[in-house]
Amino acid sequence: MRISALVERTGVPLATVKYYLREGLLPPGISTGATQADYTEDHVHRLQVIKALTSAAGLPLQKVKIVLSLIDAPGSDLFSALGQAVASLPPYRDEPATEHPRARALLERIGQLYDPAYPATAQLEHALEAAEEAGIGMSDERLEVYARQIRGIAEYDLQRMGSSELSPVEYAVLGTALYEPVLLAMRRLAHQDIAAKRLGGSAG
Amino acid sequence: MRISALVERTGVPLATVKYYLREGLLPPGISTGATQADYTEDHVHRLQVIKALTSAAGLPLQKVKIVLSLIDAPGSDLFSALGQAVASLPPYRDEPATEHPRARALLERIGQLYDPAYPATAQLEHALEAAEEAGIGMSDERLEVYARQIRGIAEYDLQRMGSSELSPVEYAVLGTALYEPVLLAMRRLAHQDIAAKRLGGSAG
Repeated sequence: MRISALVERTGVPLATVKYYLREGLLPPGISTGATQADYTEDHVHRLQVIKALTSAAGLPLQKVKIVLSLIDAPGSDLFSALGQAVASLPPYRDEPATEHPRARALLERIGQLYDPAYPATAQLEHALEAAEEAGIGMSDERLEVYARQIRGIAEYDLQRMGSSELSPVEYAVLGTALYEPVLLAMRRLAHQDIAAKRLGGSAG
Repeated sequence: MRISALVERTGVPLATVKYYLREGLLPPGISTGATQADYTEDHVHRLQVIKALTSAAGLPLQKVKIVLSLIDAPGSDLFSALGQAVASLPPYRDEPATEHPRARALLERIGQLYDPAYPATAQLEHALEAAEEAGIGMSDERLEVYARQIRGIAEYDLQRMGSSELSPVEYAVLGTALYEPVLLAMRRLAHQDIAAKRLGGSAG
């Protein structure tokens, strides 16, 4: 297809497509003349991935490049490639690694393996600390309820990785970034539903 | 306590405390002289709530004011007050209300009451649409697994509302905004744990 069809199919503006081509994020099309090239479904897919990473997931271009290079060459250690790719997602923090006492206590209690240098460990620590500072520190019981329910989701996610049309790295990155807002909206709506039924509100 | 103790207890800078006093977000202390006033634990608590809403939850001051007014005067319809307070949390979207076909289909299928005008409904619709556009649209099966697990969390949240030291509006707003990052970090760490066990990675 022509470059104009790529634009139409993906909604990515022409100038942006050309920029991605110059930067090497999008591989060149097959040249069909001095100023024309032919693009394939692979180009459409790659643009959808870039668009999701930049718009929906909010990655800066530097991080998008890291993720794309892991998608193109995950190497022989898939576990490490998946971790590096997901570690490229926001939120980003500049602070040096700390001891993560709250995260460690929880993860050890529920028997989860974890890498202290993995960004999600610091993310959990900061989230638990922020809740504490706000006066709503999480009890062990609450953390265990949350962890159990979330684990059910994570188990399902991993089970389905093999049957996805996406590569494992694509699946991990996009499934992490794009399903997170779904989970949060679902929780807010479940609260509304339960509160309506208990408090006699008028939702729906 | 003196205003300097408020600053020390909460970590909120003096200029910011004074600004909140001028803006009426923080009630005045009891005057103990021409230039001195006495502050209480209620002031500490109020500052912690404001700090959590602005820093951790990312609310603009205009929205903080709405939340504080609902905390101070929830009125007789608690369901409505809770909904308005949580609706003041990000993410914010300017788009006009749409039909929410994806959100509606899911919520009707799982039998949840919902208010189409509640921001979380649009939030769910946009999240489902973004996943679709990225080529990882969510199957009915996946949505049902997620919804079931998330409901377990939401049920627990509502159960514990009555036993919180916070007022219901505080509990709803802070428990929504501050526990959300915990959930997301937990999912990423559960993925790492499950992948390490399945793929033989070296987390932990």
